[in-house]
Amino acid sequence: MKITTLCYLEKNGAYLMLHRNKKEHDENAGLWLGVGGKLEEGESPEDCLLREVREETGFSLTSYRLRGVVTFVSTWTEHMFLYTADAWTGEQAECSEGDLVWVDCRRVPALELWEGDRIFLRLLGENAPFFTLKLEYDGSALRRAVLDGRELEL
Amino acid sequence: MKITTLCYLEKNGAYLMLHRNKKEHDENAGLWLGVGGKLEEGESPEDCLLREVREETGFSLTSYRLRGVVTFVSTWTEHMFLYTADAWTGEQAECSEGDLVWVDCRRVPALELWEGDRIFLRLLGENAPFFTLKLEYDGSALRRAVLDGRELEL
Repeated sequence: MKITTLCYLEKNGAYLMLHRNKKEHDENAGLWLGVGGKLEEGESPEDCLLREVREETGFSLTSYRLRGVVTFVSTWTEHMFLYTADAWTGEQAECSEGDLVWVDCRRVPALELWEGDRIFLRLLGENAPFFTLKLEYDGSALRRAVLDGRELEL
Repeated sequence: MKITTLCYLEKNGAYLMLHRNKKEHDENAGLWLGVGGKLEEGESPEDCLLREVREETGFSLTSYRLRGVVTFVSTWTEHMFLYTADAWTGEQAECSEGDLVWVDCRRVPALELWEGDRIFLRLLGENAPFFTLKLEYDGSALRRAVLDGRELEL
C-alpha cells in the first residue's frame, strides 16, 4: 500500500503543474500533475508535503490546506493526501521529474491528465469542503468513482 | 507502514469503548479504545471503517464523520483515520477483541488510555474542525505531539 501527498500551488489563478517528462519508467509519463511524492518512515502527511514541495520546486510552503484524501485502486492501492497551497518562500528551482509550468487553472482541463484527476481538480476549483474520493482504475481507464461514500456517474 | 481507522460511536453522551482484553499479543492489551482496524488492499478509509465497525460491533453505520488523521511514530509508523459516528442500524454483537462498554464521555479520561489518545479525545469533545496530529512514542511514553503542524507542550 502506497501513501502519498499531492499539492497544487496556486498563484494569480494559475496552478504550478509538473509535466512528467524526465523520469524513466514513470507510471505518470507524459501526464500533468501537481507536485508531491511518497511518505517516508516517520513522516506525517504534512512532513512529506513540505519535504516533497521543497525538493521538487525549491519552495518552502507557509500556507497550505488539506483538501481531501483520494484512494486509487488499480493493481495496487494508494492513499493520497491532496493539498493546495497559496503562500511560500524561496526561489523556484528545476525539478528532476519534469518541467514545472504555471498553467491558468481554466486551461488545466485541456492538459493530458489522469481521468480521475479531473474530478478532484473540479472539486478544488469549486472550493468544495474536505472530501474523500475513491477512484478505481483498469489500466488508465477510470471504472468507478465514489465521492464521500456516494457513487458518481462516469 | 500501517494504515488504520478508529471510530468512536456516540449515543446519549457516551462513547462505545472497546476494552482490549481478549486478543493474545495485543499491543493495546488492557487499554480502552474505539473500534476499527487495518485497511485491506482495495479499501478506502470509509470501506475499512464500515467493515470494521460491522465486524466488531454488529452495527452498520449510517452517519459518520472523518474528524482527523493521526500519525503514530514509534518503532513503526501508522496513519490512522479517526471518525465519530452518531447513527447506525443493527443489533450490538460481541467483539472478539475485547468487551464493548458504553462509557459516559466525561468518564472516558479516567480509563486506561494511550497518552496521545487523550489529546484527540479532547479535540473530539471540543468539536474541533478537521485536524492532523502527529504523535511520537518511545514505548508507551509520548515524546512529541504536533497538531496541525504546531508543536504541543506535553
